[in-house]
Amino acid sequence: MTFSAFHPPLRTLMGPGPSDVPPRILEALSRPTIGHLDPTFVDLMDEVKALLQYVMQTENALTMPISAPGSAGMEACFVNLVEPGDKVIVCQNGVFGGRMKENVERCGAEPIMVHDAWGSAVDPQKLEDALIAHPDASLVAFVHAETSTGAQSDAKTLVELAHRHNCLTIVDAVTSLAGTPLKVDEWEIDAVYSGTQKCLSCVPGIAPVSFGERARHKISNRQHKVQSWFLDMNLIMGYWGQGARRAYHHTAPVNAMYALHEALLMVHEEGLENAWARHHRNHLALRAGLEAMGIQLIVDEPHRLPQLNAVAIPEGVDDAAVRARLLNEHHLEIGAGLGDLAGKVWRIGLMGYSSRIENITRCLAALDGVLADIGAPVNHGVALPAAEKILAA
Amino acid sequence: MTFSAFHPPLRTLMGPGPSDVPPRILEALSRPTIGHLDPTFVDLMDEVKALLQYVMQTENALTMPISAPGSAGMEACFVNLVEPGDKVIVCQNGVFGGRMKENVERCGAEPIMVHDAWGSAVDPQKLEDALIAHPDASLVAFVHAETSTGAQSDAKTLVELAHRHNCLTIVDAVTSLAGTPLKVDEWEIDAVYSGTQKCLSCVPGIAPVSFGERARHKISNRQHKVQSWFLDMNLIMGYWGQGARRAYHHTAPVNAMYALHEALLMVHEEGLENAWARHHRNHLALRAGLEAMGIQLIVDEPHRLPQLNAVAIPEGVDDAAVRARLLNEHHLEIGAGLGDLAGKVWRIGLMGYSSRIENITRCLAALDGVLADIGAPVNHGVALPAAEKILAA
Repeated sequence: MTFSAFHPPLRTLMGPGPSDVPPRILEALSRPTIGHLDPTFVDLMDEVKALLQYVMQTENALTMPISAPGSAGMEACFVNLVEPGDKVIVCQNGVFGGRMKENVERCGAEPIMVHDAWGSAVDPQKLEDALIAHPDASLVAFVHAETSTGAQSDAKTLVELAHRHNCLTIVDAVTSLAGTPLKVDEWEIDAVYSGTQKCLSCVPGIAPVSFGERARHKISNRQHKVQSWFLDMNLIMGYWGQGARRAYHHTAPVNAMYALHEALLMVHEEGLENAWARHHRNHLALRAGLEAMGIQLIVDEPHRLPQLNAVAIPEGVDDAAVRARLLNEHHLEIGAGLGDLAGKVWRIGLMGYSSRIENITRCLAALDGVLADIGAPVNHGVALPAAEKILAA
Repeated sequence: MTFSAFHPPLRTLMGPGPSDVPPRILEALSRPTIGHLDPTFVDLMDEVKALLQYVMQTENALTMPISAPGSAGMEACFVNLVEPGDKVIVCQNGVFGGRMKENVERCGAEPIMVHDAWGSAVDPQKLEDALIAHPDASLVAFVHAETSTGAQSDAKTLVELAHRHNCLTIVDAVTSLAGTPLKVDEWEIDAVYSGTQKCLSCVPGIAPVSFGERARHKISNRQHKVQSWFLDMNLIMGYWGQGARRAYHHTAPVNAMYALHEALLMVHEEGLENAWARHHRNHLALRAGLEAMGIQLIVDEPHRLPQLNAVAIPEGVDDAAVRARLLNEHHLEIGAGLGDLAGKVWRIGLMGYSSRIENITRCLAALDGVLADIGAPVNHGVALPAAEKILAA
């Protein structure tokens, strides 16, 4: 086998993540590596923490990036807050609720599942019924923004219900963070995790997490040791703690931290409210274009995520063939359906730096061109004007 | 709080890792991000796998990078191969054997500890005694190259002993990989993990692992599910499997994979044997310089790691003050002692791209200057000539 340097094609990333990474974040990523215990790096860690507190809208001291992807962020929340024998209510309305169930089981605990249709929001009434039926449950977990369906649930209400029944809460904010409002303190979320490769538009591989006081108390007073050494917050706290004295836990992904810092800085510069508004406005433009073509979003309007648009694949259209042509001819990535929705939907992301006007027009033009070419039953030539009308308003 | 762009100082990294990352790897790291399921990325994954097989000297199909730091690579080996109730023999001669013990316990298994002094190699006789005393043990774990002490153990002999007593083996090769010979297939190692930030001189955050046929059989036939969803090799195999069809597991750290590919390419270009020889030659030169000053290596010659030189801090010298001056005045990072050796040793790394002549001379000159300035009881002005004599030979 012969090997040669890898030069990736220049894609436009409009799938469910990673999103387009802006040049200034890539540049930050490639700055010279320093040691993970270098005082200069420790200063950077403090800034990353403060910036994460800002984007998560929290003053939780236990706010930091886990040195691994979002799935490990999910696992960090479960292994620290769940003990063998616990009953955990998991609300599932897509792929990631199912992954939560796996996590609960692997902690030796019992998952109580509350199911909603894929593409729907979590129904608070069903959660309340489950809380009443299982007064011994200690935790409620749900996904704020389901990346597999594009549906957003009412995190504030769900957390309130859980607290009323003395349960802690774990919230998956992988796709919501910096794309739609997420207010960790105001909503009193106990534990939350996210990813870097969605609306932060940073490179994938890091998972911001935050734990509130109740969660922190639980972690410090467990009956059993956390089953993961790598994800044990009791140990990680020592490295990400206050002040200059840090205990070595693992070697932090130094360069990824440079990139995360720069990504958070960009959100801070734009302002969180402005980022939310941009995601919303651009979603409306994309939606107008898609609907003009006759392509329908599968999620009901009140629960639609602006940053992830799941649309029904038009009748008779070959899912994989269209995505392959978009990728090969237009260098445009959109997402396939997952699980129950495989083959039925496309997921079009407008996340972070990908939520730009030029991406909307590029996507609509490419989709229109490919679908016209294969004679798909959609309206041609109308998408761009419809989108532009919204953007001009 | 106000925030601004982070521009790291330009350090020379001669601690226990991260090592200096060469510009071409930083440049590869910053190439445009593509999707983790992009066919182009899948091709890259195949190359990374083949290159890892080369540097690990194995044909194991189950060879791949874990998307998290070395500590997670360690945990991946333990959670996949250990089941509750198992007896695991752990040879400890430094910090990382202790971390293995933690991993065994957190898997619900019983660690049988075999202790050797910090700075010594693992004693095969002690392992054999333990194997005889515990015929029901199912696994032996040890560290090939102890990053905390600079001692190398005889992996081939230890694995042979384990196999003779029907035990599988987990080998920590975090610091040995690409610095000293590591022959996974020839030595019949069952499971091995490493890191990217040592002799591969890649950015930290990724952990190459490899599992042989016996280990693979064990993983596929477990009684209990792997306790970590994120590290379950049964699932990860589906993403890193053969061919174009990959099952989504987690979002791979795409840009870190570019960097790892480039780092592996550099080892492949140099040739593994040449890399080993370079590490050895440069170690001899550094050692000559240090010994000329009167600074002694703490590990006996046959077990010394050329890539990590643990030296006794000269009598009366303030450990932290010297390291701070090296860092602040010379931008040179060397490592502190860990655990039992804290305050007693410095760890001077010559790993990967840090194993260069200019680093040796820079380190000796800086150390000589700072120690002279504080009136330390060492010989001044003799280190560089001693090192240069070796390099000229």
